[in-house]
Amino acid sequence: MEPQLPPGELAHDRHHIARVYAWALRLSTEGGVDPDLAGAMALVHDLAFVPKDSPDRALGGERSARLAGAVLTAAGYAADEVAAITEAVRTSSWSRGFAPTNALGVVLQDADRLDAIGALGLLRTVACAQFMSRPERPGRFYHDSDPFADNGRPLDDKAQAIDHCYAKLLKLAAGMHLPTAKAEGARRHAALVDFLGVLRRELASSQA
Amino acid sequence: MEPQLPPGELAHDRHHIARVYAWALRLSTEGGVDPDLAGAMALVHDLAFVPKDSPDRALGGERSARLAGAVLTAAGYAADEVAAITEAVRTSSWSRGFAPTNALGVVLQDADRLDAIGALGLLRTVACAQFMSRPERPGRFYHDSDPFADNGRPLDDKAQAIDHCYAKLLKLAAGMHLPTAKAEGARRHAALVDFLGVLRRELASSQA
Repeated sequence: MEPQLPPGELAHDRHHIARVYAWALRLSTEGGVDPDLAGAMALVHDLAFVPKDSPDRALGGERSARLAGAVLTAAGYAADEVAAITEAVRTSSWSRGFAPTNALGVVLQDADRLDAIGALGLLRTVACAQFMSRPERPGRFYHDSDPFADNGRPLDDKAQAIDHCYAKLLKLAAGMHLPTAKAEGARRHAALVDFLGVLRRELASSQA
Repeated sequence: MEPQLPPGELAHDRHHIARVYAWALRLSTEGGVDPDLAGAMALVHDLAFVPKDSPDRALGGERSARLAGAVLTAAGYAADEVAAITEAVRTSSWSRGFAPTNALGVVLQDADRLDAIGALGLLRTVACAQFMSRPERPGRFYHDSDPFADNGRPLDDKAQAIDHCYAKLLKLAAGMHLPTAKAEGARRHAALVDFLGVLRRELASSQA
């Protein structure tokens, strides 16, 4: 799969795929799905890369599903297996806002979203922010005057990395489906909250 | 100063300059330097941007010092003030390994290195890693088989972001000069150690 991933983008590299693969296997029993299908699904779930700042962002799941279908069929999976996996991939994207429509989809959403929170989620968020940053519209770690959006300003996670925590990351733990994912999600959520607290203290100490 | 910073690079943006400025002011009394000179020094300390993966990396301090001299002279600073600031900027770079040779240099090293550890140091490290990542040599958050360099492998912080914690960040707190910087450095060091512990647990849970 690796040659089809965006070269040089750290948030969706082979390690992300490997971590989601591991969690998909782990969650397969609880989710009542075949571990082989869960693993295959993880390997193909991000085949289409659509940058976070693309107007087509919400189509990543659909495009990955289309590519996944071809790859899985070539790998010898049966038509009903391919259909179940591609449906799970199609409905997995956060930005599209779908609920999973089959058991594989439940496993994929949980595995993929676990990798979006906690320490790993933070690393991936910052890498995405730098990847999106352009001379004509430079990104920032945080908003100039209200880093933690304390004052109800609109969030803009294409402009500020920390905004992404409030726009998405801190909402993910509450939406986990399976018990093991809920428990791990709660741990990672707490780690992210801790990190934001540390950052808040550091920023407060860095004001003239 | 902002137009002279690398456009789109998050680790050395106007917020970095503003944070170092605030800490240079705060440390000026303890460091026995004029706060106006300390502030001016912070504003010009990163005028020359040399990417972390450039063979000229170690020359960033010297080049910034040269540019700073011209800017400060044009701003009306006296020759001896310009000389003291540019000497501090010249000797501030970690990669060059200089010790400060005057009181301003002590303040700048502490202020600049505080911004390199803790939560902020982590954000900046990850942004640098993504900024350096190229299709022909994609960066990673961590080494494939030994993320925390537990087994004595050589560190390569141009290839792996987390390696930068061990190659540089975790060494900075011990080298702080002024008492307030030592105390803040110890807090930020501890925060970074905590983060690495959380990441270690997450990675252990993400292995098939």
